[in-house]
Amino acid sequence: MIKAGIIGSTGYAGSELVRLLMGHKDVEIVWYGSKSYTDKKYYQVYQNMFRIVDNVCRDDNMEELSREADVIFTATPQGLCASLVSEEILSRCKIIDLSADFRIKDVKTYEEWYHLKHPAAQYLPEAVYGLCEINREQVKQARLVANPGCYPTCSTLSIYPLLKEGLIDGNTVIIDAKSGTSGAGRGAKVDNLYCEVNENIKAYGVATHRHTPEIEEQLGYAAGYPVTINFTPHLVPMNRGILVTAYASLKKQATEEEIRDIYHHYYDKEQFVRVLDPEFCPQTKWVEGSNYVDVNVKLDPRTGRVIMMGAMDNLVKGAAGQAVQNMNLMFGLEENTGLCQVPMFP
Amino acid sequence: MIKAGIIGSTGYAGSELVRLLMGHKDVEIVWYGSKSYTDKKYYQVYQNMFRIVDNVCRDDNMEELSREADVIFTATPQGLCASLVSEEILSRCKIIDLSADFRIKDVKTYEEWYHLKHPAAQYLPEAVYGLCEINREQVKQARLVANPGCYPTCSTLSIYPLLKEGLIDGNTVIIDAKSGTSGAGRGAKVDNLYCEVNENIKAYGVATHRHTPEIEEQLGYAAGYPVTINFTPHLVPMNRGILVTAYASLKKQATEEEIRDIYHHYYDKEQFVRVLDPEFCPQTKWVEGSNYVDVNVKLDPRTGRVIMMGAMDNLVKGAAGQAVQNMNLMFGLEENTGLCQVPMFP
Amino acid sequence: MIKAGIIGSTGYAGSELVRLLMGHKDVEIVWYGSKSYTDKKYYQVYQNMFRIVDNVCRDDNMEELSREADVIFTATPQGLCASLVSEEILSRCKIIDLSADFRIKDVKTYEEWYHLKHPAAQYLPEAVYGLCEINREQVKQARLVANPGCYPTCSTLSIYPLLKEGLIDGNTVIIDAKSGTSGAGRGAKVDNLYCEVNENIKAYGVATHRHTPEIEEQLGYAAGYPVTINFTPHLVPMNRGILVTAYASLKKQATEEEIRDIYHHYYDKEQFVRVLDPEFCPQTKWVEGSNYVDVNVKLDPRTGRVIMMGAMDNLVKGAAGQAVQNMNLMFGLEENTGLCQVPMFP
Amino acid sequence: MIKAGIIGSTGYAGSELVRLLMGHKDVEIVWYGSKSYTDKKYYQVYQNMFRIVDNVCRDDNMEELSREADVIFTATPQGLCASLVSEEILSRCKIIDLSADFRIKDVKTYEEWYHLKHPAAQYLPEAVYGLCEINREQVKQARLVANPGCYPTCSTLSIYPLLKEGLIDGNTVIIDAKSGTSGAGRGAKVDNLYCEVNENIKAYGVATHRHTPEIEEQLGYAAGYPVTINFTPHLVPMNRGILVTAYASLKKQATEEEIRDIYHHYYDKEQFVRVLDPEFCPQTKWVEGSNYVDVNVKLDPRTGRVIMMGAMDNLVKGAAGQAVQNMNLMFGLEENTGLCQVPMFP
Repeated sequence: MIKAGIIGSTGYAGSELVRLLMGHKDVEIVWYGSKSYTDKKYYQVYQNMFRIVDNVCRDDNMEELSREADVIFTATPQGLCASLVSEEILSRCKIIDLSADFRIKDVKTYEEWYHLKHPAAQYLPEAVYGLCEINREQVKQARLVANPGCYPTCSTLSIYPLLKEGLIDGNTVIIDAKSGTSGAGRGAKVDNLYCEVNENIKAYGVATHRHTPEIEEQLGYAAGYPVTINFTPHLVPMNRGILVTAYASLKKQATEEEIRDIYHHYYDKEQFVRVLDPEFCPQTKWVEGSNYVDVNVKLDPRTGRVIMMGAMDNLVKGAAGQAVQNMNLMFGLEENTGLCQVPMFP
Repeated sequence: MIKAGIIGSTGYAGSELVRLLMGHKDVEIVWYGSKSYTDKKYYQVYQNMFRIVDNVCRDDNMEELSREADVIFTATPQGLCASLVSEEILSRCKIIDLSADFRIKDVKTYEEWYHLKHPAAQYLPEAVYGLCEINREQVKQARLVANPGCYPTCSTLSIYPLLKEGLIDGNTVIIDAKSGTSGAGRGAKVDNLYCEVNENIKAYGVATHRHTPEIEEQLGYAAGYPVTINFTPHLVPMNRGILVTAYASLKKQATEEEIRDIYHHYYDKEQFVRVLDPEFCPQTKWVEGSNYVDVNVKLDPRTGRVIMMGAMDNLVKGAAGQAVQNMNLMFGLEENTGLCQVPMFP
Repeated sequence: MIKAGIIGSTGYAGSELVRLLMGHKDVEIVWYGSKSYTDKKYYQVYQNMFRIVDNVCRDDNMEELSREADVIFTATPQGLCASLVSEEILSRCKIIDLSADFRIKDVKTYEEWYHLKHPAAQYLPEAVYGLCEINREQVKQARLVANPGCYPTCSTLSIYPLLKEGLIDGNTVIIDAKSGTSGAGRGAKVDNLYCEVNENIKAYGVATHRHTPEIEEQLGYAAGYPVTINFTPHLVPMNRGILVTAYASLKKQATEEEIRDIYHHYYDKEQFVRVLDPEFCPQTKWVEGSNYVDVNVKLDPRTGRVIMMGAMDNLVKGAAGQAVQNMNLMFGLEENTGLCQVPMFP
Repeated sequence: MIKAGIIGSTGYAGSELVRLLMGHKDVEIVWYGSKSYTDKKYYQVYQNMFRIVDNVCRDDNMEELSREADVIFTATPQGLCASLVSEEILSRCKIIDLSADFRIKDVKTYEEWYHLKHPAAQYLPEAVYGLCEINREQVKQARLVANPGCYPTCSTLSIYPLLKEGLIDGNTVIIDAKSGTSGAGRGAKVDNLYCEVNENIKAYGVATHRHTPEIEEQLGYAAGYPVTINFTPHLVPMNRGILVTAYASLKKQATEEEIRDIYHHYYDKEQFVRVLDPEFCPQTKWVEGSNYVDVNVKLDPRTGRVIMMGAMDNLVKGAAGQAVQNMNLMFGLEENTGLCQVPMFP
């Protein structure tokens, strides 16, 4: 049994990790970390866990945790994981960081967009960006995995094949993304109150959202050249789900069939990326609770642009599910262990 | 492997059966019945099943199905199962009927409330009411199980202990129930359109809802005398979940602690009924996607009444989950096989 | 023009007052009080008011406000209005208090249920309970009106006729109420976050909710004897709306027609109480944004109980709309001035 | 009093017309047309109108209606208005058509995108496109107004100023739009059921939506050259509201301040278009129930693109409200008569 500890287990991503790991046959959770609820029974914070988890929440002592666990998940605000990690800890256990601390290779870019001084830039070179479908082999060798952001996961997987194949111009990419409210976390803020979100939709972080450079970095790797994009996230009145609608101009003539073939070429062997039949647009509800990303693409011959679409559950493939997928790879397990939930509809 | 066929697999309860059975290690679905979508790929009706179910929908031929299956689930409108069942079919395979056809022992009551002539009343005596926590032993022996209605499941389990122990007067029971919209099925009706249900709540079927006699019959067994109740269902703007708030007058003096002890006595050994800690009221979201019923009780000493509460997922414990639980019992499997989903929150 | 000041104008009830008063031809708002947003532009707190309200929020100085206004609305937490009111202020202007401070005549009851020491019990005798349909004449004479609670308004109007006419036994009354989330206010609490409320329903304050004694007092006046009831509120995933489903036992034989006649007798002359046709159950959506209460009643001859139903918008008839209705009466205006909004559907 | 008739008064747009006209001091509705509910009381179809509208629904006889009315609103499927209109009718009364029949000047384009033969192309030249802020003077003279589509209204008003001033390249325009579900109408379809829409978001009509040529025509007028765009609508789990997020590349260098100045120049004199302060993104909830369009713009200097945003209520400014605004202009009334509703929040 792999012993797992979760720092930040009482946030939405942390609690989803608990849900998934409770169904993982090779993992035992040994540490439910929570700064806000230390010493409280975990199930009193999340009643769904009543009679399932009997543990008490513990503090954020990563040093001590590293002596008890084989793997540590940090589902915490930016800066925390980087401030706690050390060579000693990494020598004892693997770390999967769900925050942004190790996602961006260029320290300056990180510090500019996050307005933070990076406390552990020395680990950036070794950290592996845990987008399993793309970096599978590196993840298997990693001690420290930077679990991708929710928007970057969905965006990159939606766009990757055409960019990698040189069919679209990376600098024409515009990503219009829509997210459920769990992406905003469980913090008590007026903006996230039921009455403010319900019956409402808005863009936010326009031209300034922190996931922008992360997406650009990944798209740049695919393109082979630096890519600058527009990325606009929107808040949607639903709990879970991210939908990405991405636009780009074709660099060379292609039919929709050729374009679809590229997607199938890249993803048909991937369990968690489903290229839908031509007549179906991805819908977030069809992947809810599962680790799937559903993608599809349309060509608009009138404008010479492709519209690339992706839908996933932001808490699963966009956070906890992908973290488990990374863990499976790091520990030599079957990649899909504990991740075969059938999406729940309706 | 148990071979299962589902008649009515493209309704919401039917599709939930598919979801649960896909994760059941001892079952293989051999027949996806659907009157509306015969010959269509199942995943084209439910995109969540893309790359999970590749089968084509078949018609409602129960006779033929009974030659291919060990168990038949009928998730169909009232009257259909009863009109198709026969001794020959029952001699070949077991039937779990999710409709109301075999739930009510008294034909006259059935015909009065359902405005239907019962086409197979001869099977009423042998049909077992599949409320597993109460009729476990009979279910194990049954060929034909009447899977309980969603409201009756949640109502009966919420009230049963105090009525059985004679603490409350059955004829003072008032059940005020609230259901998500999936309970109304997938039929295209104006009343169930998004814009009609969203931002709205209403009572319906006041003093006339068909689940009333079913609840009364079950409560009568518990009480040991005929019970007449008020039952008022409400439609709530959410997909899944039933919440029951039931009121009854105490017949003898008791403290809240004594009352809670009774619930614990009845349910502490039951995996799927969770008696919450005193300070928590059941919430439907805490059981979503799982087979749990969460119950709790408050005593109001000012009025001498108890308020009994229960929450469950109407599609799981209220339909497909309980059907699987019944199947497990009928086939001698562990009762919880395929039913250990952790509730999904948020 | 009546000059109005609002203390607590940036809560949901306060902002609804602003919405309604902006459309009231005889009123000018001279004071937008807000403890949390003092000195901020009102429209920056509520963007719907952009280019409609240009004022800046001011503090809670009721003394100063009373020199500028003809009427003061206090839409503030319990205890505040009572701690600020004085003979001097009341000599200068009228007060309509949307908090509970002056709703309950018996100080001891108030202090027990609200766990507060009442700071101005001397005004309780003169304060008029502003349920316009019942206390119209007293409201016209009042200096200080206690604007009824949302649940008490809907509950009392739904039950009043039958209790007043002696048809039902007040001590058999059970009120099962359901409210949208705006009733919980705009405070930033985890329990009111979108992801906690959405796709969820729960009871709360079971047997202990503070509106219980307020309802009991009003029902007692109607009955002519002290009444003890059960009252259970529920939180529903919608912004606005309260639905009351109330149960009571008949004291004498009556037909549904006779019962309906009583409702018509009491309410046909009332603009804001609509007795629906027999086949329609009240729905909150049908009154949204308006000052209407829709009521209806069913008799269950099997149990001898009536089921009384009422639906209203908790922010309008349940708060700001009724406050305006009271103001109209106090200032000798037509009672419906500024309150003729057609409900918004869908 | 202007006598108004509504053909299609029982759809969502038709019922919103009724709501608005009930509050219009100069209008009396003389004809509630409804093919589906002929001879039924209007309030039985829309309970919000109980005790407000006592009329009975009538059929779609436009010829007869034109003898009783001064203005006819057609809120009907494409093709109906065009098949009924005649010189005789137009000689007797004005028509405001909420369908697409007269919005597109080029018959071939209409027939291509709508897959219909246009039954009355002879009226296309005289029909005025009723986007009041842009075609105010022509509307005043019109007999026949084509009321703009919901997406085109929000899109055009969001983009118009920069395109008109030549700041952006029309052929780089990408419109990513999000709509509440009332835009899909009140037809009973599985896709619009509560359980299918709730907790879900999807794109639809990708690269093929019929509002595309309508938007392109209007943007072409603004640009002074033919414009081809990408337009992608999305279905959002809310009743009302459209949000447009539009992208375009700058043709010349400009600061965000200069860009904002252009918006202010075009819209500061317009009552119904509000250019928000720089720090606020439009949200649909802030305009709900009102005739406002809230717009804002951000410049992304990294990509040289502007992000233009607009939010409105699809049933008001996107349908019935704009129709009333057009009527006011056509009859020489103040443009805002009956349209001063304060947006309802929350």
